[in-house]
Amino acid sequence: MRAAVLNRPGEVEVVQRPDPTPAADEVLVRVHAVGVCGSDTHYFDHGRIGRFVVESPLVLGHETSGVVEAVGADVDPARVGQRVSLEPGVPCRACEQCLAGRYNLCPDMVFHATPPVDGSLAELVAIHHAFAHPVPDSVSDEAAALLEPLSVGVWACHKGGVGPGSRVLVTGAGPIGLVCVMVARAAGASEIVVADLNADRLAVATELGATRTITSGAETIADGYAAGPAPQVLLECSGHAGATADGIRALAPAGRAVLIGMGGDEISLPLSTIQERELVVTGTFRYAGTWPTAIALAASGQVDLEHLVTGRFTLEDTAAALTAARDTAGAIKSVIDPRPSAATGSTRG
Amino acid sequence: MRAAVLNRPGEVEVVQRPDPTPAADEVLVRVHAVGVCGSDTHYFDHGRIGRFVVESPLVLGHETSGVVEAVGADVDPARVGQRVSLEPGVPCRACEQCLAGRYNLCPDMVFHATPPVDGSLAELVAIHHAFAHPVPDSVSDEAAALLEPLSVGVWACHKGGVGPGSRVLVTGAGPIGLVCVMVARAAGASEIVVADLNADRLAVATELGATRTITSGAETIADGYAAGPAPQVLLECSGHAGATADGIRALAPAGRAVLIGMGGDEISLPLSTIQERELVVTGTFRYAGTWPTAIALAASGQVDLEHLVTGRFTLEDTAAALTAARDTAGAIKSVIDPRPSAATGSTRG
Amino acid sequence: MRAAVLNRPGEVEVVQRPDPTPAADEVLVRVHAVGVCGSDTHYFDHGRIGRFVVESPLVLGHETSGVVEAVGADVDPARVGQRVSLEPGVPCRACEQCLAGRYNLCPDMVFHATPPVDGSLAELVAIHHAFAHPVPDSVSDEAAALLEPLSVGVWACHKGGVGPGSRVLVTGAGPIGLVCVMVARAAGASEIVVADLNADRLAVATELGATRTITSGAETIADGYAAGPAPQVLLECSGHAGATADGIRALAPAGRAVLIGMGGDEISLPLSTIQERELVVTGTFRYAGTWPTAIALAASGQVDLEHLVTGRFTLEDTAAALTAARDTAGAIKSVIDPRPSAATGSTRG
Amino acid sequence: MRAAVLNRPGEVEVVQRPDPTPAADEVLVRVHAVGVCGSDTHYFDHGRIGRFVVESPLVLGHETSGVVEAVGADVDPARVGQRVSLEPGVPCRACEQCLAGRYNLCPDMVFHATPPVDGSLAELVAIHHAFAHPVPDSVSDEAAALLEPLSVGVWACHKGGVGPGSRVLVTGAGPIGLVCVMVARAAGASEIVVADLNADRLAVATELGATRTITSGAETIADGYAAGPAPQVLLECSGHAGATADGIRALAPAGRAVLIGMGGDEISLPLSTIQERELVVTGTFRYAGTWPTAIALAASGQVDLEHLVTGRFTLEDTAAALTAARDTAGAIKSVIDPRPSAATGSTRG
Repeated sequence: MRAAVLNRPGEVEVVQRPDPTPAADEVLVRVHAVGVCGSDTHYFDHGRIGRFVVESPLVLGHETSGVVEAVGADVDPARVGQRVSLEPGVPCRACEQCLAGRYNLCPDMVFHATPPVDGSLAELVAIHHAFAHPVPDSVSDEAAALLEPLSVGVWACHKGGVGPGSRVLVTGAGPIGLVCVMVARAAGASEIVVADLNADRLAVATELGATRTITSGAETIADGYAAGPAPQVLLECSGHAGATADGIRALAPAGRAVLIGMGGDEISLPLSTIQERELVVTGTFRYAGTWPTAIALAASGQVDLEHLVTGRFTLEDTAAALTAARDTAGAIKSVIDPRPSAATGSTRG
Repeated sequence: MRAAVLNRPGEVEVVQRPDPTPAADEVLVRVHAVGVCGSDTHYFDHGRIGRFVVESPLVLGHETSGVVEAVGADVDPARVGQRVSLEPGVPCRACEQCLAGRYNLCPDMVFHATPPVDGSLAELVAIHHAFAHPVPDSVSDEAAALLEPLSVGVWACHKGGVGPGSRVLVTGAGPIGLVCVMVARAAGASEIVVADLNADRLAVATELGATRTITSGAETIADGYAAGPAPQVLLECSGHAGATADGIRALAPAGRAVLIGMGGDEISLPLSTIQERELVVTGTFRYAGTWPTAIALAASGQVDLEHLVTGRFTLEDTAAALTAARDTAGAIKSVIDPRPSAATGSTRG
Repeated sequence: MRAAVLNRPGEVEVVQRPDPTPAADEVLVRVHAVGVCGSDTHYFDHGRIGRFVVESPLVLGHETSGVVEAVGADVDPARVGQRVSLEPGVPCRACEQCLAGRYNLCPDMVFHATPPVDGSLAELVAIHHAFAHPVPDSVSDEAAALLEPLSVGVWACHKGGVGPGSRVLVTGAGPIGLVCVMVARAAGASEIVVADLNADRLAVATELGATRTITSGAETIADGYAAGPAPQVLLECSGHAGATADGIRALAPAGRAVLIGMGGDEISLPLSTIQERELVVTGTFRYAGTWPTAIALAASGQVDLEHLVTGRFTLEDTAAALTAARDTAGAIKSVIDPRPSAATGSTRG
Repeated sequence: MRAAVLNRPGEVEVVQRPDPTPAADEVLVRVHAVGVCGSDTHYFDHGRIGRFVVESPLVLGHETSGVVEAVGADVDPARVGQRVSLEPGVPCRACEQCLAGRYNLCPDMVFHATPPVDGSLAELVAIHHAFAHPVPDSVSDEAAALLEPLSVGVWACHKGGVGPGSRVLVTGAGPIGLVCVMVARAAGASEIVVADLNADRLAVATELGATRTITSGAETIADGYAAGPAPQVLLECSGHAGATADGIRALAPAGRAVLIGMGGDEISLPLSTIQERELVVTGTFRYAGTWPTAIALAASGQVDLEHLVTGRFTLEDTAAALTAARDTAGAIKSVIDPRPSAATGSTRG
């Protein structure tokens, strides 16, 4: 099969790899769509994220959909032909965290496109059957791939307790901030304020359900709430220390701050505010058990994931796909179709 | 002022009463709209509900909106002129339940239109300032009155844990079942199945967000779920023992059943199902702290309460208003405008 | 190896069986102690529990401790020699319930001593490594076996929200009622009232931490609470319909009822009480994730499981062990030691 | 009546003040015991705490017990003679926070001994009847006064989710750290590790239930956990930034950090640890609804509050009482008896 591998920072190459063979509890999936995540771009640019270093050629990609092509010995053969969305991290399913339902905290998680584990930017990928989630026909291949970032938003809103009537502040309007907007809206939030420096992204946030925006730089978060009631939930998606602290300071008593954006090892937080208002501050690490919700939201039309797609690419165009969001004004989400049929067509970016 | 009093079962009369004087912590409200609840009709028909007996002329009505006309000594005078929706039960605010935020369980609750406490079917009503909730202009007088039944749905969905992607079964499509549908949809439920005998009501349920209906009598609840995944939440609004048991039996493992409809002192429930699936069964008694959410949902357009209004009446037409839902095919919710200006116009029913 | 098998109701026989071979993810455990559960006795007496029927010789026993004697290919060999307590149900670890941490609700659970799955009343037993929990030396073999019934109490108290200062009512003072008393006390409950017909069992309940008892028959539950504040939590361990309904009626507003005792398919519950007090009623099915807590409670001395042991038996005495609790006044829990060394010694019952 | 007033930093004087008259919803309490809190000492030393400045003579004291001597017009006269423990903050009971049960977050809270509100270091004090909690005879006057600091521990353990089997780390072994130890133990924690610089305080912590101690300076928190499982709950009572960050870094995945100690406006926290382990960080501000639990724990003997008392003083000795904990090795909690009978006896310090 063809696979796009990252040889070293800045160098992606399409190579031939042996077709994977599914283990007894796995399915083999022919990949139809792979979304590009900021972490893919970060590996492309820097060759590492924190302690995870690309030391040998790595297949990127972990936002994936496709069709089951074969199954392992212990998997129901009726699954062949099923359209699936892949949950890209397979935990050990036997440790204390896994058995408690917090499998995202499993110390032995095997996660796609995290060195040395290959991702899915290839024609075929094998994965544990329980992590290849069937999707109905009302969810397109691209939407099925983007259930992965949607899951980040589902998890964040869950942690934040977003519900009907909630007033939510989202700091950062990149792809994760935008999925948070979509899920918060689907969850019934009545006020969704989005803060970002980038006016283009704020415009997209408004299309997706933001009820008000704050253009960082032009006004502060405090300014943005001068005239109205304080938010009850902060979904911090910028990874920016100032936005995090300002967002927390803006919260109403008993508010909840969910820190999703990655922003370094240490952060200065407003302790006395957290205490006097009894705020709850937490962080998210990927997600657990979100696919059923994400599928339901996409299948019912409550969220429109294709709205996020701003570029479509072949496997051979992987480098362009990886850098589009970084380099192209207005670009949000690139999707790669690794099938040969895509390669023979024109680039759709 | 004019007030509509229930003298005895079947006899409502408009009488002159002295204008109420607000106590120090009260506001005096000029009433613009009063929704008719099934309990009002039940008092009209039977003169009692359980241990609550109409022993002297009683003003009915507890779904109320209006405008603040005067305030007591301890209330901010700036509230005069404010449009408000009334939360019709005022608790003691000092007992263990009240201090825990469960004020709906206060043993000393004073609740409108519950003998011997008068309701609001009058030109003026006085109430504790904290229970006259300001509403924005985007909420009409009628919608502001109907925040009370909406609150029942908000509370039920809260108890049921309805959230994004939830699969919800609503048994009973009367006004409470319908507000449950509206709130469940606003809260992000992806599947809302409604069961009722009455095809007209099921049609309204579909307009309001039901994704599928079960015509009781023609098919069972079990039939209705034969082909698909089980519901995670039951919102039981019929008060019917069979629907309650069948609804509980339909639930998925770890499901939640919220029993809202009143159905007698005892009920037979499927114990072994509750145990083997670890279902949670609970009941609701009015609501606590729901107005902010209800206002947000109505103000933002997430719910359309006026869709429920099927009859508009003057104070003099109170008897017709009280019996409309019982006697008129397709009738759901009557609203009475007790202002003299309404009385001089034509009946809008 | 020797194993005690139930051939038919009333007939238990010690037979030779091949030593089990651990699968790749299993450990092989040499059994030191097996507690007798009411379900074992029920199979002995009736040959079935509900839909589970003993159709071929069945090894009973699911309250088990021992020492790891060998490990499968994928298990750390350092575990050989480790003292362990067995969690007797191994779920699929891949379904929605398992991945959500509710593995006790797994539809594909394989549970010891539930036909056709053999139990542990044998010299050796193989089990998935994650379900053989290491115990420290401060937990005796017998206590390690009885972590299984303790887990039922841990789960019940967790579902009931028992915490510091709680007022708890336990109906039924059999082994499960007694472990509920022990855990409720360890969890900080300040009032633990136990109701039962049997004065001997109530005396044991008092030794274990009950602060007051109600002798059913001599007084009602309502009588028992005539002079004091209502309980906040009901832990129903009798399976008796009257006790269940009376216990629920006794609850304070916002109280929680946990139905643990098995009592048939249907039960009549006080609906209006559940609604007016917004009670939460739920049932338990085994337990999930309780071993760490159970081990901690036993290891620290917060609970004294050996206090429950009233009879000690060899494998050859299995029939006597199975019927002791049924036939012997004051008997609570029998423990069988299947080791040959036990068989050569005198019966310790 | 006699009252001890703080005229300026370092100057406390016993003066005559008019007896308070209870308002309609108040009780008048003759004070038997007043515990000294670190905040009293801070006002004595510095004349202010943050934005709260002593600008006119202030009565200190907010840990109070006594006997009801008279009642206001709306209070049950049967309360006269009742022994009570005072909850020293009376909220508005009408705002959104109060009605939600989060009355500690009420913006209009009136709290004893917080300028300009007088405290209870006087012979008599009037307070809203619902905040004068009856105590049984098994709770001594001193213990009844110390239900206030106990409440801080009850609230902290509640926020931390401390329960049976929990592993808890308490940083700081001052009076609040010590009540946290007591409540954690009562709540069933199996491991309670306490870290402090002061060996005397660690010795008291061990007497009260700590299972292990870490002498800060001699070893780090990380050292203290080198050999064992990580704590699940951090109760931070030192207000020290280093201890807070180290305590959070020590937590197990899904752990909870409760920040109780006051430590300035800003704090640097380990963001990536919070995210990767999905830790929950929150702060406490006083308490809400804790007296019933605190009373139950003291009345049942689950906690021994008198163990904390290291000095007993008359009103005339207030200055000595205020500085004892600061100046006396081994001093933990001073209690003042403002009755004249105490003044005529010998100092009991």
